Amino acid sequence: MSVNLYDVANELERAIRQSDDYTNLKSLYAAVNNDEGSKQLFERFRTLQMELQQKQMTGQEITEEEVQRAQQTVAIVQQDENIAKLMEAEQRMSMVIGELNKVIMKPLEELYAE
Amino acid sequence: MSVNLYDVANELERAIRQSDDYTNLKSLYAAVNNDEGSKQLFERFRTLQMELQQKQMTGQEITEEEVQRAQQTVAIVQQDENIAKLMEAEQRMSMVIGELNKVIMKPLEELYAE
Ligand SMILES: [Ca+2]
Ligand SMILES: [Ca+2]
Repeated sequence: MSVNLYDVANELERAIRQSDDYTNLKSLYAAVNNDEGSKQLFERFRTLQMELQQKQMTGQEITEEEVQRAQQTVAIVQQDENIAKLMEAEQRMSMVIGELNKVIMKPLEELYAE
Repeated sequence: MSVNLYDVANELERAIRQSDDYTNLKSLYAAVNNDEGSKQLFERFRTLQMELQQKQMTGQEITEEEVQRAQQTVAIVQQDENIAKLMEAEQRMSMVIGELNKVIMKPLEELYAE
């Protein structure tokens, strides 16, 4: 990788850290961690989410019961205001990252579209 | 997305376009397209590759025969010097893009590792 490319990537990393979306996400994440109830609920949710992702990635079947349990957990989690705000901010941040990725993929896409 | 973030992403896009890896890839791709034999072979290879990817993504089974056909095509394709060089350059470029992605994913990863 050329030195220049690395420099610009690091600049982008810094810009992400300084963006409103990121600093907002960071403080919402801290708010969840500072509330014992929210923290436990969020950890339970994340564990469940990772278990299901793991199953999906390894091609294991996800049972009807597991789908229901996941939906129930999402419903509970969304009633916790700290977590609801965090999840909203996570969605915005991943949209931003998605847009950044689209921009840096453009040169390659153009090449093969020619 | 903050204006600043967009600006830096566009700067990174320009840096990619100007990088040796990209300009090299671009001229190797042109070399393949300018050689009728290489061009046809490469198109055949890409079509096969996309068919298999499509099957994988939609969860369809890939037969033993298809795997063999793909391996044969790769072997033939690698004997074409134009294509072999292009494929090497493609691998380098996707490593670079992968590294760039890792850099811009760092802020998010750090957040959840805390
Ligand atoms: Ca609480
Ligand atoms: Ca030829």
